[in-house]
Amino acid sequence: MTGKIKFCMAGFGNVGKAFARLLLEKKAELAAEYGCEPLLTGVCTRSGGALINPGGLSVEKVLEMNEKKNRFADCKNFADCGVPEMIAASGADLFLELTTLSSGGGEPAAGYIRQALNSGMHVITSNKGPEAWCFGELNALAEKNGRMFLYESSVMGGAPLFSLVRHTLRGNRVLAVKGILNATTNFMLGELEKGGSHEDAVREAQRMGIAEADPSADINGLDGAAKICVLANVLMNASVNPGMTYTKSLAGVSAADLEAAHECGCRIKFICRAERDESGAVRTSVKPEKVSMDDPLANVGGASTAVTLYTDIAGELSVVHTDPGIMQTAYGVYNDLLTVAEAVR
Amino acid sequence: MTGKIKFCMAGFGNVGKAFARLLLEKKAELAAEYGCEPLLTGVCTRSGGALINPGGLSVEKVLEMNEKKNRFADCKNFADCGVPEMIAASGADLFLELTTLSSGGGEPAAGYIRQALNSGMHVITSNKGPEAWCFGELNALAEKNGRMFLYESSVMGGAPLFSLVRHTLRGNRVLAVKGILNATTNFMLGELEKGGSHEDAVREAQRMGIAEADPSADINGLDGAAKICVLANVLMNASVNPGMTYTKSLAGVSAADLEAAHECGCRIKFICRAERDESGAVRTSVKPEKVSMDDPLANVGGASTAVTLYTDIAGELSVVHTDPGIMQTAYGVYNDLLTVAEAVR
Repeated sequence: MTGKIKFCMAGFGNVGKAFARLLLEKKAELAAEYGCEPLLTGVCTRSGGALINPGGLSVEKVLEMNEKKNRFADCKNFADCGVPEMIAASGADLFLELTTLSSGGGEPAAGYIRQALNSGMHVITSNKGPEAWCFGELNALAEKNGRMFLYESSVMGGAPLFSLVRHTLRGNRVLAVKGILNATTNFMLGELEKGGSHEDAVREAQRMGIAEADPSADINGLDGAAKICVLANVLMNASVNPGMTYTKSLAGVSAADLEAAHECGCRIKFICRAERDESGAVRTSVKPEKVSMDDPLANVGGASTAVTLYTDIAGELSVVHTDPGIMQTAYGVYNDLLTVAEAVR
Repeated sequence: MTGKIKFCMAGFGNVGKAFARLLLEKKAELAAEYGCEPLLTGVCTRSGGALINPGGLSVEKVLEMNEKKNRFADCKNFADCGVPEMIAASGADLFLELTTLSSGGGEPAAGYIRQALNSGMHVITSNKGPEAWCFGELNALAEKNGRMFLYESSVMGGAPLFSLVRHTLRGNRVLAVKGILNATTNFMLGELEKGGSHEDAVREAQRMGIAEADPSADINGLDGAAKICVLANVLMNASVNPGMTYTKSLAGVSAADLEAAHECGCRIKFICRAERDESGAVRTSVKPEKVSMDDPLANVGGASTAVTLYTDIAGELSVVHTDPGIMQTAYGVYNDLLTVAEAVR
């Protein structure tokens, strides 16, 4: 016996498409093992409008349209509207917020999430903005409405960090978190170590498809700040946001700095930290730091990401995700879908 | 409202004592958050006989007796018997198998576990022998009896590896496993790299309390073989055992080998592997291997342990447990207790 889960999606970019493909691939397994039959009832992109049909849209056809660069506007289920209207008209049980947009305050994604939770939908997001800026509020809203709010793919993509702490480190307190959370700058540091200039490093990262056209949010630490705030808010019960995070740009790191670190048996890494100060308040920072070569983070190279959790009883645990790609981020979303499927079964 | 869980223990060595202390420390939290009140009804040591009282023994008093080196025989609840008699007379709902004994075949621990499962008890073990030799049989027996069989602390102590795969990598297939699972030999390799002889390295490991008096099972790979078989049997659905595992002793590694590895940008590590061959059968090995410096396992030093999981959709994930101690192994047992507490609640 399978139960339909109607879902709608904001965003059909790289993560959305990879998730859609994974869903098709896992269709039989989802039905057999989780009794779950997901039914797409709405999808909205930034500039292309929406497709809406509470009776169901074909995931295959939406993927095909996207591949052929056909416009939503030429489809009979087209609606010339934005995300809020799509959410309202979709009749979905579950809202997937897969946009990458979020300015200070986590908007507009946080607003979409509020609307969905208030409409009785569960929410899964791959967007770090809402949890970085207003995790406490959104989590409380989800609890009040008896709905799930899940965000496994928002930090470290497919590495199931939040599930790990929630399900497998029960009874532990997370005392501090340290991580390499931005793939672009970690890759750039590798290029700088090979002797390249900052400009070369950026260009190579772009050529490899790791960096975006404008990597300034990576380099100045803002991307890392959002991610460490998500970890602090979720894992350490903090109420921090990127605006409260100390950041120091990677741009100031010179070849001489890398050499000096190397000479004292260290390596420079762009480290995100969340720690409690003497008063117990959680402080977050993102800055270039010397890391000893015997630290598990020291030889996390390329576009890999890693995090070290300091816990009161399980001790010091590091998780390294080697060269994750878009499929791994899509897996994070899929993992959250399984959580919803188990809960509503 | 709290529910009593009567439990009995085989073994009151380092792990048993650390677990008993953790239990006292977490008493209030266990009652408040898990509605669980554990009640010790039997404990049996290798040479000291048993204490048995289905109405309850005081964990504090057993710890105190142990610290004062008082004999069980001087206590009114003393029974001059072995583990099987203790299990039978304890009236427990849960059996903790915390001995370190296990010869080929995983006995006698596997036999204790069979008896407990057949008596309707849940079972938690920190002993790798039973899962290395007869995981499939014991797991099937637990299922048949509707009881839980848990072993989180048997490999990598407090790093919740099995829970991680079970709860947080759902929908994934584990394709291969690679790990540094033996702390003694990993520590020894560090000493050899510093220029020490094998004899020096063993002595230093013993002085640090990492190696046992007889470290031959560590050095010849038998300890690693048992651990990789547990991982293969549990995570890859294999039916392997240590006797089927290819092992090559660490004793043959010379200073020249370490130097040669270093010169090609590698490091020698004592690597445990489980992989499928062309026919799909799982093959396990433990041997000194050259590891590239950009591998997350390369700079896992000291007595730390680590494992890399290769999965079909979540990609390549490594978990490093930095300098775990006995408290972390006790946490693995405690984590399993929470699983039982949640299930019987």
